[in-house]
Amino acid sequence: MSKTRIILDCDPGHDDAVAIMMAARHPDIELLGITVVAGNQTLQKTVTNALKVCQHLDINVPVYAGSARPLVKDPIHAEFIHGKSGLDGPAFAPLTRRPEPMHAVSFIIKTLMQSEGDITLVPTGPLTNIALAMRMEPRIINKIRQIVLMGGSAGAGNITPAAEFNIFADADAAKIVFESGLPIVMCGLDVTRQVRCYQEVIDRMAQLGNKASTLFKEMMEFYNQTQLTAFHLVGGPLHDPVTIAYLIDNSVLELNYCNVNIDNRSEVSYGRTNCDLINFWKKEPNVHVATGVNVERFWDIVESCLALY
Amino acid sequence: MSKTRIILDCDPGHDDAVAIMMAARHPDIELLGITVVAGNQTLQKTVTNALKVCQHLDINVPVYAGSARPLVKDPIHAEFIHGKSGLDGPAFAPLTRRPEPMHAVSFIIKTLMQSEGDITLVPTGPLTNIALAMRMEPRIINKIRQIVLMGGSAGAGNITPAAEFNIFADADAAKIVFESGLPIVMCGLDVTRQVRCYQEVIDRMAQLGNKASTLFKEMMEFYNQTQLTAFHLVGGPLHDPVTIAYLIDNSVLELNYCNVNIDNRSEVSYGRTNCDLINFWKKEPNVHVATGVNVERFWDIVESCLALY
Amino acid sequence: MSKTRIILDCDPGHDDAVAIMMAARHPDIELLGITVVAGNQTLQKTVTNALKVCQHLDINVPVYAGSARPLVKDPIHAEFIHGKSGLDGPAFAPLTRRPEPMHAVSFIIKTLMQSEGDITLVPTGPLTNIALAMRMEPRIINKIRQIVLMGGSAGAGNITPAAEFNIFADADAAKIVFESGLPIVMCGLDVTRQVRCYQEVIDRMAQLGNKASTLFKEMMEFYNQTQLTAFHLVGGPLHDPVTIAYLIDNSVLELNYCNVNIDNRSEVSYGRTNCDLINFWKKEPNVHVATGVNVERFWDIVESCLALY
Amino acid sequence: MSKTRIILDCDPGHDDAVAIMMAARHPDIELLGITVVAGNQTLQKTVTNALKVCQHLDINVPVYAGSARPLVKDPIHAEFIHGKSGLDGPAFAPLTRRPEPMHAVSFIIKTLMQSEGDITLVPTGPLTNIALAMRMEPRIINKIRQIVLMGGSAGAGNITPAAEFNIFADADAAKIVFESGLPIVMCGLDVTRQVRCYQEVIDRMAQLGNKASTLFKEMMEFYNQTQLTAFHLVGGPLHDPVTIAYLIDNSVLELNYCNVNIDNRSEVSYGRTNCDLINFWKKEPNVHVATGVNVERFWDIVESCLALY
Repeated sequence: MSKTRIILDCDPGHDDAVAIMMAARHPDIELLGITVVAGNQTLQKTVTNALKVCQHLDINVPVYAGSARPLVKDPIHAEFIHGKSGLDGPAFAPLTRRPEPMHAVSFIIKTLMQSEGDITLVPTGPLTNIALAMRMEPRIINKIRQIVLMGGSAGAGNITPAAEFNIFADADAAKIVFESGLPIVMCGLDVTRQVRCYQEVIDRMAQLGNKASTLFKEMMEFYNQTQLTAFHLVGGPLHDPVTIAYLIDNSVLELNYCNVNIDNRSEVSYGRTNCDLINFWKKEPNVHVATGVNVERFWDIVESCLALY
Repeated sequence: MSKTRIILDCDPGHDDAVAIMMAARHPDIELLGITVVAGNQTLQKTVTNALKVCQHLDINVPVYAGSARPLVKDPIHAEFIHGKSGLDGPAFAPLTRRPEPMHAVSFIIKTLMQSEGDITLVPTGPLTNIALAMRMEPRIINKIRQIVLMGGSAGAGNITPAAEFNIFADADAAKIVFESGLPIVMCGLDVTRQVRCYQEVIDRMAQLGNKASTLFKEMMEFYNQTQLTAFHLVGGPLHDPVTIAYLIDNSVLELNYCNVNIDNRSEVSYGRTNCDLINFWKKEPNVHVATGVNVERFWDIVESCLALY
Repeated sequence: MSKTRIILDCDPGHDDAVAIMMAARHPDIELLGITVVAGNQTLQKTVTNALKVCQHLDINVPVYAGSARPLVKDPIHAEFIHGKSGLDGPAFAPLTRRPEPMHAVSFIIKTLMQSEGDITLVPTGPLTNIALAMRMEPRIINKIRQIVLMGGSAGAGNITPAAEFNIFADADAAKIVFESGLPIVMCGLDVTRQVRCYQEVIDRMAQLGNKASTLFKEMMEFYNQTQLTAFHLVGGPLHDPVTIAYLIDNSVLELNYCNVNIDNRSEVSYGRTNCDLINFWKKEPNVHVATGVNVERFWDIVESCLALY
Repeated sequence: MSKTRIILDCDPGHDDAVAIMMAARHPDIELLGITVVAGNQTLQKTVTNALKVCQHLDINVPVYAGSARPLVKDPIHAEFIHGKSGLDGPAFAPLTRRPEPMHAVSFIIKTLMQSEGDITLVPTGPLTNIALAMRMEPRIINKIRQIVLMGGSAGAGNITPAAEFNIFADADAAKIVFESGLPIVMCGLDVTRQVRCYQEVIDRMAQLGNKASTLFKEMMEFYNQTQLTAFHLVGGPLHDPVTIAYLIDNSVLELNYCNVNIDNRSEVSYGRTNCDLINFWKKEPNVHVATGVNVERFWDIVESCLALY
């Protein structure tokens, strides 16, 4: 089987960092580049965090800085979850790595246009970079194999009562992506909330005893602390890695193909991903919404990835 | 302990019918009147259904016809759940009971204004009657003890992806009620979806062997059939009776006091009850949202009520 | 020719007061009652003002107090135009008149239901009373001959950039009325802004030398002062009387039959009356929008009315 | 005095074509480039039209193709005004000119970044290119001297009842531009509707007897025909050239500095430019809204420009 060629578009962030670690080494995945967007923290910080993780684990993948703010609305960040740096917890060595000079959006366009249509986009942050690329060069839409993203919720949100953070951060970009006509797998809170990183999970990973598992432990212990404070949750949900786990083993998710309408017009429900699982609105399906996850299998996949370091 | 004096404002509807049965006989409750609103079916049908249940079970409570349509928007009914009559399933004798000549809204206003402020409103349908009463006579707001309603959802909806049926049917009325400043207990899908009327529940109630339990069985077997067809659910959720069960035994619900914002402006998220359990919007709490239910205790209460016939 | 039988639903307000004066005495009009709504000022003040005008000019028409606040949204008043009392300027004798005990909405319903379908409603304030009446008793819709209202604007608004005051004050009520299917004549800012009450108009009316013309002068001199301050306008527009002038002489207005869509969903354009004069939305016409006014003829009509005192 | 250096961002379009003609030759203006956007017609057609005008009149300015569709919403074009080609009327020689290979957005970014902050952007179509440039490279915002645009309306719209065509075509882009913090001069329908190209205007220009005046005549005669059909207007408004006339002689417009809020959320008022001339919303001014125009002076300027050919 040929490798799944991907561009990881992220805003690290603790769970993004785990997604990077998984995607960078797994033999079934070819990570072409890491494009970074503002989200969990400012662009400067999320770029720095992506570079730190790569440098720390000797991941030789180019990192591109993208959009510093959402398409239309004002920015919002998640310092209350990811801390001041956006990746609080671990201590990293001074950064020597640098981002590539090319803009993330230009990298996405160039890479897709030169491809044979076999590249999967994996966004785990706000969808600003992807949306800008689609508007700057509409022909890329025919070059994208599929989009496997972390974002949204069929149920309640986690930033507002209506919306999940990534979609709320830029629902206009999400509207563009969700209405692109491309095959989309939406790994939303409905599944990511189920993969809770309890202390026993951390301990299990830590037993691998390598640099990646130690980083995992240091990151997740900080993350679990803020999850407890902000949401009264014991064991934070490891959102973003669900996308990579799905690419490695599709069977980890149960998908429902239905219409998803992004609310980018409401004041109080802005960013809601209305997943019409009962087909009330009678509109064409456009998204494969993940509605179930094999939690045990998920952690096996995470462990198998961390073991590669 | 004195009885809880209530007006039941409903749109029967199978689960409304069970709520009537429970409220009419339980010794802790004094059912002052049944006010009816369009919702699950047209007003004519929901009034007829309320009368049929009362006549069938010798419930001597006056029934008042109220609003035939929502405050602002166009009407929607739930024939796909409750059938053509709105209470398909049981065969009732020809109807001889008649609704009272007074308008439901006038009855609500009159009863409240003559009261000592001890009356609880229990709406289990769209909130049109209650909202109209509040606007026709604003002084009733100081006369209402509390509102214990079935409606809304912190998670996904059951009519649209965003909204629960009762609130979607008239979100403008819901806005009025939720912003009235009154103590409100919201029994939404988050709890009512947990009280699933499986066949074993039906069998258990049927063993009571009285007229009420037989009616329960006949109604719920039809209801379960449409729930299966419409939602692929085995065992339909017995939404409305949760309100009465709560009045009989507050401990059956776990409540969270938070701000709930009704979205009556969005096209695609119209009717969403945004329950701000994590206080993102930093607004004053206005609703006690039911987030947990003791399912076993609930069915015990239902059984104890049906046993009174 | 038989008289035009009307109910005047108003929120006096200076221009409402002139409308009362005109409607009460003109031989072609039978004024069945004055129903009052909150708007330019609180209900208590607008009722008081209606009574003051009637008492001052010996107008023997019953006055009914209606809705104290808009249907759904929060109230807004126009103290910056009509002053603290809502009718600042003239000095009135102490008030001995009282409003009728019946609620304005009940009066509207009762009068219409007892009528032969020949009554015209003339709202010159927010449409809350009319909307509540339509929802409390939907059968009145078949009993209303037509609605001739002051409100809305095809162009810019006068309270927000998007909306005229009466519609902005209760766009949800306006939505109900405009979508009632009834014949509606909308006298909006497009025409009322043209009937500017310059000093020469005041002087001309004052020359009539009767009690009504003196009241007109005292009121309009105050009104012109606030119009100057608030809008930098010399000669305030005499909005509400355009409705009565039209009833007396239809030829005073040029009407365009088109679709008017009330925006009751937008935050920033709430209350806009989107008058689709070029039929962009391809929807059924529902309103006769006044787009032209014979200004000279208008003032002649006003003068002829004031001369009757 | 140094020349005003501009980039003209347009979607020709008859009136855009006149703007090109004016900007290309006037001694006070240095036209650095023409960037084209979809709007009055598809991008392919608007680019072709820009090239045709340049080729026909030997205008040696580079033409760049930009965004083929709006930022978020679906495209809309104005074939009913500008005809099938988007510039119906004149017969042009076969096109030999080609657009530059660079993307319009890249040209805008590059040119601004290399400038000393002295460049004025003159958008006369939907604001998609400008918005994309601002998001792709936020630093350009500090490099733009000002934006003088044709679009919007304080009064009624010309495509929907609420909105002017350019803003309606991409209100999300307009939101980005209007909230950029830059000095903006908005030449909306409030002034452009006053510069009506009556037959006597066409005749006057035709008397110049050069290639430009002939082109003007041929274009405007077609344009006036569709204006008559679509809007029942005799003498179509020459919208876009107002921007260039203002650059040549600021005194041609009367400006009001106020807050303008773009409605990009409403369904029925989408694209409205709410110009808060009476400061209801109490928000910071952000736009110099043109509220008056010296019509005679305007035509003098147009004539002086056409005379340069």
